[in-house]
Amino acid sequence: MKDLLAVEHLSRDEIERILDRAESFAEVGRRDIKKVPTLRGRTILNLFYEASTRTLSSFEIAAKRLSADVHSIKAAGSAVDKGESLKDTVATLSAYDPAAIVIRSPHAGAAEMVSRWTEASVINAGDGKHEHPSQALLDLYTLRAGVGSLEGKRIWIVGDVLHSRVARSCLLAFNAMGAEVTLAGPPTLIPRGIEALGVDVAYDLDRLGEADVVYTLRMQMERMSESYVPSLREYAMRYQIDSRRLGPRQLLMHPGPVNRGVELAPEVIDSAQSLITTQVESGLVVRMAILYEVLAGQDRPSVRAAAEPVTDPPTIGQPA
Amino acid sequence: MKDLLAVEHLSRDEIERILDRAESFAEVGRRDIKKVPTLRGRTILNLFYEASTRTLSSFEIAAKRLSADVHSIKAAGSAVDKGESLKDTVATLSAYDPAAIVIRSPHAGAAEMVSRWTEASVINAGDGKHEHPSQALLDLYTLRAGVGSLEGKRIWIVGDVLHSRVARSCLLAFNAMGAEVTLAGPPTLIPRGIEALGVDVAYDLDRLGEADVVYTLRMQMERMSESYVPSLREYAMRYQIDSRRLGPRQLLMHPGPVNRGVELAPEVIDSAQSLITTQVESGLVVRMAILYEVLAGQDRPSVRAAAEPVTDPPTIGQPA
Amino acid sequence: MKDLLAVEHLSRDEIERILDRAESFAEVGRRDIKKVPTLRGRTILNLFYEASTRTLSSFEIAAKRLSADVHSIKAAGSAVDKGESLKDTVATLSAYDPAAIVIRSPHAGAAEMVSRWTEASVINAGDGKHEHPSQALLDLYTLRAGVGSLEGKRIWIVGDVLHSRVARSCLLAFNAMGAEVTLAGPPTLIPRGIEALGVDVAYDLDRLGEADVVYTLRMQMERMSESYVPSLREYAMRYQIDSRRLGPRQLLMHPGPVNRGVELAPEVIDSAQSLITTQVESGLVVRMAILYEVLAGQDRPSVRAAAEPVTDPPTIGQPA
Repeated sequence: MKDLLAVEHLSRDEIERILDRAESFAEVGRRDIKKVPTLRGRTILNLFYEASTRTLSSFEIAAKRLSADVHSIKAAGSAVDKGESLKDTVATLSAYDPAAIVIRSPHAGAAEMVSRWTEASVINAGDGKHEHPSQALLDLYTLRAGVGSLEGKRIWIVGDVLHSRVARSCLLAFNAMGAEVTLAGPPTLIPRGIEALGVDVAYDLDRLGEADVVYTLRMQMERMSESYVPSLREYAMRYQIDSRRLGPRQLLMHPGPVNRGVELAPEVIDSAQSLITTQVESGLVVRMAILYEVLAGQDRPSVRAAAEPVTDPPTIGQPA
Repeated sequence: MKDLLAVEHLSRDEIERILDRAESFAEVGRRDIKKVPTLRGRTILNLFYEASTRTLSSFEIAAKRLSADVHSIKAAGSAVDKGESLKDTVATLSAYDPAAIVIRSPHAGAAEMVSRWTEASVINAGDGKHEHPSQALLDLYTLRAGVGSLEGKRIWIVGDVLHSRVARSCLLAFNAMGAEVTLAGPPTLIPRGIEALGVDVAYDLDRLGEADVVYTLRMQMERMSESYVPSLREYAMRYQIDSRRLGPRQLLMHPGPVNRGVELAPEVIDSAQSLITTQVESGLVVRMAILYEVLAGQDRPSVRAAAEPVTDPPTIGQPA
Repeated sequence: MKDLLAVEHLSRDEIERILDRAESFAEVGRRDIKKVPTLRGRTILNLFYEASTRTLSSFEIAAKRLSADVHSIKAAGSAVDKGESLKDTVATLSAYDPAAIVIRSPHAGAAEMVSRWTEASVINAGDGKHEHPSQALLDLYTLRAGVGSLEGKRIWIVGDVLHSRVARSCLLAFNAMGAEVTLAGPPTLIPRGIEALGVDVAYDLDRLGEADVVYTLRMQMERMSESYVPSLREYAMRYQIDSRRLGPRQLLMHPGPVNRGVELAPEVIDSAQSLITTQVESGLVVRMAILYEVLAGQDRPSVRAAAEPVTDPPTIGQPA
């Protein structure tokens, strides 16, 4: 696997290999020295055209725990400001011969385009409304620890499905692992014809009690001004998950950051049923596993050249 | 000591232990390879909600010299922009299992709140008008080298005491080490009743000649528009430290960055009596010592697990 | 060589030593573990007062491949925002005892000023309209690989010479290596009297066919509003390099980022004659060589102290 662009392209076997690998990295996280030399001397570039705390932090820390050199570029303050095209930026960055480029972009398809322009492995960290595969994989990892096999499990994804790359990657991932997925939310926020992907649709939460897992989505504040929902208060009244709606044996998930009091009531966020913090924890080991997966098989010219005998210049000021 | 939240909680013994430790790190700084493996495989997170050059740089470089992996998050461009609460941000970051979180916030009490929400060690890098303990410790370190014991020494803190977390942390620290502290400045900028903390107050600099050390504070430009002082020119006339006011045997300090020509006249900033550059130098070793102090005793589950035998995945492309 | 401030100060021998060194680092880049321990335990500070992707990334990755600790400060969000002068910032940063400070500034002469204020090695990464020596060196490196010796070769530098530090550094570098340089562009964008530096001037591209190498410059969009050129369209018509103007044996260069469709037509950017991507690749190894060159001879007190026997504090949680 050279790139990780979309859940759509992943087989169940590939998914399970990544989750197994993540488990082995979880063991590293329990050590005192939480670091392995796996990617020593490799450069990982994070190219983020959208603000991000958790995804960027998680990829950065994951890369450092694999001993890679990490270099992150945020759109603001970069040549992007000077109007450089994505293609030219990728050509520039590829000239530094990175092992992988992790890209987040507001444009659907950006990661795939980048993969055509570079020999580096490309990891999609979110491309517009298209996909966010590392999020779906960390959710699978979280669920495997929480409920075991997803075969026949019922998962409701609740909220703004229309604009959510997380929803798209998750429904594909949950489906691939044998779960039965229902999408729930206001009709304005559920794409027409999405049933074709093998999911159910619900416009209210009356049957939410069926769900084993309730996966809530972030409500983007700007959707109000765009008239997708009449008001946040109305949205919360009809779709907010609170202790009244959430059954005692149902598990709760959210990709974060949460809008407290909008899609989730404060009391359920920190409840025992909430896997939200576990999801973030999973993010770290799953992203280590993703980096490992796309790089382990890498057989580029530079790797083949590694067999040549080499002589280093001496360390400056070091006794020989 | 799990956290460093405030000078207020530190005993004289604890302070001296940190200063002694800093001295041992100063020795590392004189080596060619200015680095020790102390925190290898540990992650230090810097979470800065206010702009900072010297404090952030100093903590970053300190952590790197201890071989930690460092990850810094500035409020702008992070999920904070999406309205995530401090509590949720800390929950997210804690999920990466950092050894320590270094936090700067515009809100008094922020560091203490963070310490209640995380198992990581928390270091207060400035919380609103409350405290800035690492600054006070580096000032003590600087003074110990410059004048030896502070017992009975007279230190004047001059300027905007009211808004200064540095003033608060320093007066507590100087007091704890036996110095006699006088706070001097315009009545509008000295908190009412502060004498209760065991300090003298002066509204002019007539008796400044008594001082062994003159510790000047940064005048925030925005205080003008808030009517705390009539004008910078007037403030400078009455409280600026210049070569006329500074006696030949008095030492001069300032936490930086200096407003040249406001609280300090240019000629004294670079004079032989000025410890300002020494203060910055001290910052590095004192922050190494603080990180060491809060982490050395750390006995979290992850540390106990370190005794388990482990097998690493192979380094990619490495001969076995 | 303590600093690299300008091509102006470099002898041909010094230039060739850097290019030879870069070649040895190119070999490191072909290895699997693209890293040498040369600068382990040294701190490199990047102080960038202007936005930059390629130069900053390139210096950061170069320093990491030499195993240095790297700390980058961008003007926005730093104490610079609080009005701290460059001199005070340098005094602060120097207190951390960095091995080198890499500075980019909008002010001509900034790097030289910094070198007077610090004991660290100073590398000019672009100072106003003055010089950008690492760019010129990477261009020489690229050309040495592409055409061999520059002796007697004809190089045309085309575009906004007036505002370009790249043009200035390149013409000095090309001259030093024995090339014959012609500057071409609108009369408003070629400095009066520049022939004194030993170059030819052309106000049109009629004789462009003579050139062995066509080095194009970035057209700053803001020059339009400043009335240096009537319109981008008019500029492109007269000076854009396209497949009609570029002869089949001429090599094409550009320091990036390119304004596609302004100074260069899209078809020539990605043509076989274009060295643009090679220039970026060269940037990495040439900057490694520059860091090596200024630091290898460094004999500061801290280096001499390295011979002292030392005892490290133990790694926390590590078995002894």
